Amino acid sequence: MIEDKNQSRTPISDLGEFGLIDHLTKHFKVTQKSTVKSIGDDAAVLDFKSKQAVITTDILVEHVHFDLSYMPLKHLGYKAMIANLSDVYAMNATATQVTIAIAISNRFPLEALEELYAGIETASKIYGVDVVGGDTTSSTTGLIISITAVGEVDKKDVVYRSGAKPNDLLVVTGDLGAAYMGLQVLEREKEVFKVNPNNQPDLEPYTYIVERQLKPEARKDIVKLLKDLEVKPTSMIDISDGLSSEIIHLCKQSDVGAVLYENKIPLDPQVISTCEEFKIDSTTIALNGGEDYELLMTVSQDDFPKIKGNPNLTVIGYMTEKEQGMHLITRGDTLIPLIAKGWNALKDQ
Amino acid sequence: MIEDKNQSRTPISDLGEFGLIDHLTKHFKVTQKSTVKSIGDDAAVLDFKSKQAVITTDILVEHVHFDLSYMPLKHLGYKAMIANLSDVYAMNATATQVTIAIAISNRFPLEALEELYAGIETASKIYGVDVVGGDTTSSTTGLIISITAVGEVDKKDVVYRSGAKPNDLLVVTGDLGAAYMGLQVLEREKEVFKVNPNNQPDLEPYTYIVERQLKPEARKDIVKLLKDLEVKPTSMIDISDGLSSEIIHLCKQSDVGAVLYENKIPLDPQVISTCEEFKIDSTTIALNGGEDYELLMTVSQDDFPKIKGNPNLTVIGYMTEKEQGMHLITRGDTLIPLIAKGWNALKDQ
Repeated sequence: MIEDKNQSRTPISDLGEFGLIDHLTKHFKVTQKSTVKSIGDDAAVLDFKSKQAVITTDILVEHVHFDLSYMPLKHLGYKAMIANLSDVYAMNATATQVTIAIAISNRFPLEALEELYAGIETASKIYGVDVVGGDTTSSTTGLIISITAVGEVDKKDVVYRSGAKPNDLLVVTGDLGAAYMGLQVLEREKEVFKVNPNNQPDLEPYTYIVERQLKPEARKDIVKLLKDLEVKPTSMIDISDGLSSEIIHLCKQSDVGAVLYENKIPLDPQVISTCEEFKIDSTTIALNGGEDYELLMTVSQDDFPKIKGNPNLTVIGYMTEKEQGMHLITRGDTLIPLIAKGWNALKDQ
Repeated sequence: MIEDKNQSRTPISDLGEFGLIDHLTKHFKVTQKSTVKSIGDDAAVLDFKSKQAVITTDILVEHVHFDLSYMPLKHLGYKAMIANLSDVYAMNATATQVTIAIAISNRFPLEALEELYAGIETASKIYGVDVVGGDTTSSTTGLIISITAVGEVDKKDVVYRSGAKPNDLLVVTGDLGAAYMGLQVLEREKEVFKVNPNNQPDLEPYTYIVERQLKPEARKDIVKLLKDLEVKPTSMIDISDGLSSEIIHLCKQSDVGAVLYENKIPLDPQVISTCEEFKIDSTTIALNGGEDYELLMTVSQDDFPKIKGNPNLTVIGYMTEKEQGMHLITRGDTLIPLIAKGWNALKDQ
């Protein structure tokens, strides 16, 4: 029997637009009570009853935000979801629905879209969000994904960027800089591969940081943890552009200053060792490397006993009067002003 | 004084991402009661109280959905809004908020983005919707716009595609086919321009159809009219892909058949004359030409006295048992099965 080598490459045009959306979303189940009507009408219908809704949108572009040479499509779908869900959690809300808009060039077969949607579906299951709408269309070049995430929150629980007060503790979840260092490793391996395509990369020493780049998670657990601890942060933001830029956002919107201690910044040992290998300062990476999707929050000093010693939460500084500015206190006790370099700026260097 | 010829071309990178969003959205005012928190946090916060929310997403890609050689950016921004708002009105809902995601190549200066946003702002003012979120990023080529529109509706008022019953009247708003014929005229003029760039097109005989293509409107007024008339359609959909394809959607989702009378299809005289000029059958255009953004609905026979003679509403047929299928009855009394060719298919011919 002669094998059809093209059997796994179905042109997207075979299905037509309506067939395509049906095909890609037929596995999706509705699990949220607030989803009244999902995919299949002019719009989805949601009912948040007495709760408030939050809504946030991101757009990801091939060659700008991701590189398919080391980012599998399934991971890309997953990560695109995470980037949006993270913004919902940063409001102290529960993520409930997403809509997905995709433009894709016909260099991709149907199977590629299925992979992408498999990642979206995996994230939707793990995070318990319903995919309630979408639009899939052709692009002249490349792949573009725009996701809008919706969440719900009790009015009394919503946390803005603007509520930080002087003396509030500055608290961060997880550890920082790993996603950026994972990207450095992947980009190095890509260059090696270009020179010698037979070379198999040994990513074993970089498992954690590469996973943080390719399959990040959003901190849904923190929203629950804060509720369990009965702590409502005074302000909160997710870390997508680097710690420095996010601290500056909280300070500007809350009209306060901040002090950040270099020696308190949580770093994974793999970040430290990889930074040494790449001869990069790990604090610079934590401050400016992006895509960590951790949460940065301020917490009243009164709540310190509730968060003390919690392995998910690290106190890294405190807020001050606005006039005192925004500073990093180095290990050598030097005061350095915080600058918003951000992930993109760093990448362009 | 020497004029700086480049004064109106500011590179987008001059502003940076945060500066850019601030710059583009600073004129936007919040007018909807349900907008609790707009642009400036990780997500916008909305409160629909006892109402249900509807949500819909579209993505528009340069060279696929629009051609900037005859579509001014301001009109494009306006039209992108209309395409989404139309979906909200098709749920019998009031459009309340939108989020805007844009990917744009750096061949566009800041002033181009300002034009695009001016169109978005004009639509947001006219239709009374708040722009509550957005993401603007670079693309490797071209311009991509994804808009998510949100609306609110009393639970009892929401209209799906699935409620049509046999004997319900099939009703359409406005007239059909004009946007498609406007596109034909614009594409013809583009070809003429390529041959002779000094030729000034005379669009005077095509004012209405060109405007329907370049500056369409969404039928917000119909949602209000139906409320005033105390008519709740049994099903409704917006006409973005052509009458034929939308009738088929209503029939499939409502499990019914339909009869459409060719001689009842509302056509503007300019559509008829331009179809004659282009030697195209006007019924084919009404059935398959897209982007009309009119509403197609089914109404119970009991409500006929309420809609009779209303200049905004034309009865074009009625629904039947599913077994009777979906047919067009021609002027010559011939029965022709309805086929979903749709706008894109037509365009590809």
